[in-house]
Amino acid sequence: VDYQHVQVPFEITLWIMLASLAKIGFHLYNKLPSVVPESCLLIFVGLIMGGIIYGLNDKSPPVMDSDIFFLYLLPPIVLDAGYFMPSRPFFENIGTILLYAVVGTIWNVFGIGFSLYGICQVKSFHLQDVSLLHNLLFGSLIAAVDPVAVLAVFEEIHVNEKLHILVFGESLLNDAVTVVLYKLFRSFCEMPAIKTMDVLAGVGKFFVVGIGGILVGLAFGMIAAFTTRFTKTIRVIEPLFVFLYSYLSYLTAEMFHLSGIVAIIACAMGMKRYVEANISLKSHTTIKYFMKMWSSVSDTLIFIFLGVSTIGENHEWNWPYIFFTVIFCLIWRALGVLVLTFFVNRFHVNTVTGKDQFIIAYGGLRGAICFSLVFLLPDFHRKKLFIAATTVVILFTVFVQGMTIRPLVDLLHVKKERESAPTVGEQIHIRFLDHLLAGIEDISGHWGQYYWKDKLEYFNSKYLQKILLREYDQPKSSIVLLYEKLERKHAIELAEAGQLGHTPSQPSLLHSALPCSNSHRSVVTDGKSEDILNPDVLENIQEILARNLFRIRRTVPAYNRHTLPGETEPAEQAKEILILRHRSL
Amino acid sequence: VDYQHVQVPFEITLWIMLASLAKIGFHLYNKLPSVVPESCLLIFVGLIMGGIIYGLNDKSPPVMDSDIFFLYLLPPIVLDAGYFMPSRPFFENIGTILLYAVVGTIWNVFGIGFSLYGICQVKSFHLQDVSLLHNLLFGSLIAAVDPVAVLAVFEEIHVNEKLHILVFGESLLNDAVTVVLYKLFRSFCEMPAIKTMDVLAGVGKFFVVGIGGILVGLAFGMIAAFTTRFTKTIRVIEPLFVFLYSYLSYLTAEMFHLSGIVAIIACAMGMKRYVEANISLKSHTTIKYFMKMWSSVSDTLIFIFLGVSTIGENHEWNWPYIFFTVIFCLIWRALGVLVLTFFVNRFHVNTVTGKDQFIIAYGGLRGAICFSLVFLLPDFHRKKLFIAATTVVILFTVFVQGMTIRPLVDLLHVKKERESAPTVGEQIHIRFLDHLLAGIEDISGHWGQYYWKDKLEYFNSKYLQKILLREYDQPKSSIVLLYEKLERKHAIELAEAGQLGHTPSQPSLLHSALPCSNSHRSVVTDGKSEDILNPDVLENIQEILARNLFRIRRTVPAYNRHTLPGETEPAEQAKEILILRHRSL
Repeated sequence: VDYQHVQVPFEITLWIMLASLAKIGFHLYNKLPSVVPESCLLIFVGLIMGGIIYGLNDKSPPVMDSDIFFLYLLPPIVLDAGYFMPSRPFFENIGTILLYAVVGTIWNVFGIGFSLYGICQVKSFHLQDVSLLHNLLFGSLIAAVDPVAVLAVFEEIHVNEKLHILVFGESLLNDAVTVVLYKLFRSFCEMPAIKTMDVLAGVGKFFVVGIGGILVGLAFGMIAAFTTRFTKTIRVIEPLFVFLYSYLSYLTAEMFHLSGIVAIIACAMGMKRYVEANISLKSHTTIKYFMKMWSSVSDTLIFIFLGVSTIGENHEWNWPYIFFTVIFCLIWRALGVLVLTFFVNRFHVNTVTGKDQFIIAYGGLRGAICFSLVFLLPDFHRKKLFIAATTVVILFTVFVQGMTIRPLVDLLHVKKERESAPTVGEQIHIRFLDHLLAGIEDISGHWGQYYWKDKLEYFNSKYLQKILLREYDQPKSSIVLLYEKLERKHAIELAEAGQLGHTPSQPSLLHSALPCSNSHRSVVTDGKSEDILNPDVLENIQEILARNLFRIRRTVPAYNRHTLPGETEPAEQAKEILILRHRSL
Repeated sequence: VDYQHVQVPFEITLWIMLASLAKIGFHLYNKLPSVVPESCLLIFVGLIMGGIIYGLNDKSPPVMDSDIFFLYLLPPIVLDAGYFMPSRPFFENIGTILLYAVVGTIWNVFGIGFSLYGICQVKSFHLQDVSLLHNLLFGSLIAAVDPVAVLAVFEEIHVNEKLHILVFGESLLNDAVTVVLYKLFRSFCEMPAIKTMDVLAGVGKFFVVGIGGILVGLAFGMIAAFTTRFTKTIRVIEPLFVFLYSYLSYLTAEMFHLSGIVAIIACAMGMKRYVEANISLKSHTTIKYFMKMWSSVSDTLIFIFLGVSTIGENHEWNWPYIFFTVIFCLIWRALGVLVLTFFVNRFHVNTVTGKDQFIIAYGGLRGAICFSLVFLLPDFHRKKLFIAATTVVILFTVFVQGMTIRPLVDLLHVKKERESAPTVGEQIHIRFLDHLLAGIEDISGHWGQYYWKDKLEYFNSKYLQKILLREYDQPKSSIVLLYEKLERKHAIELAEAGQLGHTPSQPSLLHSALPCSNSHRSVVTDGKSEDILNPDVLENIQEILARNLFRIRRTVPAYNRHTLPGETEPAEQAKEILILRHRSL
């Protein structure tokens, strides 16, 4: 037997196999996953495995390697999260998310750090040797909400889209803040004296790390989209590029000490639209499937490793410190959410309700990122205390909060996710309203989100699509694409039921009624998607809407003595609009 | 910049990226791949890369690590080959393939080894220090045809199915022989004296290595099929099991010094049928796509690395030895094919033509396996000579033979692959003939391939399907499945053309003609698959065929004075059949 030779791949494969089998095992009994979140069960499996290894070897089982975690396990999960991020609610709430992620995290770091330093001053706790800086460093790693843990729990409780994106978006974007604060305090710990300059440089780093991550991600995303323009002859390697480029964006960002998580999300969100238009349907299925598969395995491995790493002798059990860490994590998060939401609700039409605030505060789960960061700490005599406290906080949030959040959501009657996808009727109305609002914002001189969205859309169709898409001359509206998808699905259902050709399908009936459907009939909104679909008519409406809304603006300065209608120059238009705006301000 | 931290994954990703981009690059110009095989172009890219690295660093570029090759690059390609192996032609020609793979490879090893030893005796070549054992060791690694190289070239020239499976099957199955001979000679080289026992043990090892590999592979394949019975609730990790179990089978076989290639092929061929019945359609698409993608990337990397590793100072250029190696490789392969085919044609109805023999001999390409094996040789003073000779043989076969084989195939008018898939009419006939032949073989007492196939099918439906399939009570015949697939495809085409419901499809017309289709109409064989399809009728025929053919045999001993019809015991049946057989022999 030559085990040495195959050891590395063999053990990796076995771990993945264990993770997958554990996943199957849980789902065999339908009742178990509906009561206990999968993450808890997996940690439990990990604890048992760790116990077995500890019992057999009589030494601490290996802890999860931080490098393995950050380089191999985290990227698939974040890529999956970014690629399937619902962009509309994300961008609608981007302000609130950023507020929670940046200000909220800083608030938590300093709140937890300072109050723990207060606890350290109590003589009977024997903690007086833990300095303020060490407490702040600990605060910086324990404050951040973990995207993996949040995703694992929130995917199962199905709260409404807005609430979900607020918690999940925060957990993703706080990475930039965590990276900066953690590295800042770590370098401060090693410095003899801290100057004001260092603190100012730290503040500047926020922007570099965050915006740098976005730029790196977008750059790779655009290159990825551009590459898929040329894959028509070898469809089979199309999925590869999505994975390769997003991984490269993550690694590049990490290499330059930028936020890898932010980079990979920017890359995924940036390329998605163009890549999907360029690649084949089967490649797309493969990408979706493999991403989900990969992230689900990574996720499983992380929780199992969390359990395994908990067992052993890496801990110093100073209970007062650990107890107060848990309490402060809860209190400061609750306070932070309350205060920040107060400001959000003053400036935002769509307010965050009290129930939502409670769930946001309660959903602040900690996970493997904290765990990996605490092991990356430089060696000092109280490191084992920090490890113990982190472990307890993670287990507390995942087990207690994770298991009680579903009953609480039911008890509080928190608004749930809607069960059906939006109908085509709704989609048309939403788009119509978007155009309308963009027009209103434009005329009234308010540079709001619709204005920017419209600008971006214009830039996209004018430049980006031409460069990045293979067949940019025939861009189909998303509604037409949806229609085609529904038709195809319907056809497959008919074929599977063996009814193909017996009864003409509903969409086809409409289709055969083409000559009379140029009327207004097609904007009927009875909610049934099959009843109102006719691609030509829809495209017509789209075009009328798009053209006319632009034309309203463009015809404003057309009543000019010196120019004929339609001959106004863009520069003059812009001047006219500026004047209008100045007046309205 | 913290490059150290991300170096390993970053460089791996970059290499894969380079490989993928090179692939895209070649396919951008349609003319290039039709003249030069992709493998040649990739080696060329590798040579350039190697040259650049050599020029910049002024030292030999890193050679392809044999561990990386055998543990990470080879398995995906072999898995792909095994999973998509056309099982019918493979098993129909298994005897011929095994003859070429086992006897042919041994013939080549000893032929090349002894004749090179003859060359070494010529004084003016300065090769007298190369012993016979070393020459045989070299012969054992240079004799084996390489599946990766064969696949890369034969996939592009589209010869007929039988010819393809003969060359490709040989290249896969000769692994067992290569492993045994290579390890045998290597251990002989290190022994002070070789006993007869050692040689006999070597012969015994053939069977252990080959059959052991098959058993390991089949065991993992069955476990994989069994596992996918339980994945109904989490479809997303289904593809993972196919990859994990086949990789485990490879690693396990390697661990016990069995043939990993044989194991992974047995695993893939064994599980395919059951896994496909258990998993969802999307999982299946993902598996197929990802396997192709993975193997195509591995393949690309191997050829690029081959090119890179060629550059440098690892070589000892003794031209007579190198020249005669190339010559002997060609001569012994040609002789071997001629002699073996002579015997095959005497015992086989379906003969191998002269043109086919030429292509089989000419298609014996060498590739990365030889290359990795030669670097794994223990250090001795003439190792660099062997490396040089191996490199030249590989480059010669891939470039000269690989590039000229397509013109030769055209010139000789070698029978090409048929362009269309077999129609349903043909499929029905083939199945009908199978049953008929199984019956004939059974009655006549000839234990031929149809008899064994029938037995296996019986065992499969009686035991294996019940254990391994989730819904074993409703096994659909493959013809019905094909029909459903065609219907679905047709429906999608109709939907995409916007014609759904306008004209009832052809299959549906048939469907609506159900009441009168119980007649014999459905076995019409005009070749158009849409015209004869009706699932009920087909299933009827299938059932009638399957039942009655078994019944013919079972009713043979039914005219017995002591038993009523239908009450004959299996044991008695068997006895009766045995008697019949004894008479016929």
